[in-house]
Amino acid sequence: MTNQEVKLFGVWESPFSKRVEIALKIKGVEYENVEEDLSNKSPQLLKYNPVHQKVPVLLHNGKPIVESLLILEYIDETWKSGPSILPSDPYERATSRFWANLLDDKLIPAAMKFIKSKGKEQEVIDEICELLSKLENELGDKKFFAGESIGLVDIAANIVALWLDVIQEAVGTKIFTKEAYPKLFKWIDEYMNCSVIKETLPLKADLLVHFAQSGHA
Amino acid sequence: MTNQEVKLFGVWESPFSKRVEIALKIKGVEYENVEEDLSNKSPQLLKYNPVHQKVPVLLHNGKPIVESLLILEYIDETWKSGPSILPSDPYERATSRFWANLLDDKLIPAAMKFIKSKGKEQEVIDEICELLSKLENELGDKKFFAGESIGLVDIAANIVALWLDVIQEAVGTKIFTKEAYPKLFKWIDEYMNCSVIKETLPLKADLLVHFAQSGHA
Repeated sequence: MTNQEVKLFGVWESPFSKRVEIALKIKGVEYENVEEDLSNKSPQLLKYNPVHQKVPVLLHNGKPIVESLLILEYIDETWKSGPSILPSDPYERATSRFWANLLDDKLIPAAMKFIKSKGKEQEVIDEICELLSKLENELGDKKFFAGESIGLVDIAANIVALWLDVIQEAVGTKIFTKEAYPKLFKWIDEYMNCSVIKETLPLKADLLVHFAQSGHA
Repeated sequence: MTNQEVKLFGVWESPFSKRVEIALKIKGVEYENVEEDLSNKSPQLLKYNPVHQKVPVLLHNGKPIVESLLILEYIDETWKSGPSILPSDPYERATSRFWANLLDDKLIPAAMKFIKSKGKEQEVIDEICELLSKLENELGDKKFFAGESIGLVDIAANIVALWLDVIQEAVGTKIFTKEAYPKLFKWIDEYMNCSVIKETLPLKADLLVHFAQSGHA
């Protein structure tokens, strides 16, 4: 496909925006990145995502797609030529969607509570640890969640690969360690070594500065 | 496909369980219904949905699929012979998923808050009314959300077609009325008139008794 307009409205520090970037790069889709300022959202962002008014928004030939996991499905269904993001088997697809949803519905809200409580609430820590154990168990001895190459869960789990460590460092309470979650840390090594991930995710040091400046830590 | 085992673990009063029943019936899939007791969940339910321990669970040839919206996608991908539940166009698919998610992520939690506050909190009422207006607007003058026949959003919106009225009657504060939302009420008429819906959804009177008995009203 040529002559198509693909624009991504996102912010560099958002794991949700980065999910979309990773998927577009995996598929080899050229796109224009539009960096938003969340304290002063652009009229386009508000126009294209009137209900949630959030990044990321993917604009494809004038049509806006919102919510990062839905955008990943859209990308996979639209650009079929590149590697698949979801498996083809319906049961495996349901399983991938289940774990991706668990990250968004459970782990990320728990991480937000962890930040708010400055790492001091044991109940929140227990919740995060339980979720990480479930992920560790689901990963098992596979290279990636999807098997031999990166798929939906791996892309969705970029928060586990990078942001979680930034958060715990910023708040000063370490709970996500190599000793406790050896399989997830092995996965992080493999993941962060992929060229598409390396060139897309921000630097940990930059995220730490951003966290400090935004008053989170 | 013959000789396959399709079991649904659900409860009669759950809009989530009913979504799955509707989808199976639309596809013409024969299944065995296993009625759960949520105050004493079966060992099978806990085994097949260890993370959330919730209904509905669809068991297909020994493999469990959980979360009602993911089950609907699974059913659509597995039994391709029947009518489609999701549209084929990727953009329309993303749009359907967006509205179905909005129901689960926003409207249903707001309805739960409405029950808890016994219909007394204006902020909760405003939130529900705003979401209903968005749905009314999205429906427009279409017969169903998907167009001429029932699709993902219509199935997911069974809570709007039946449970919302039960809830407002149970708590004694009417906010969802024909005058305020004429298009949604026209949709409800069309929807409740479909044979598959009529034969699947419980009676309003039975839900009201259940609500009263469970101490919600």
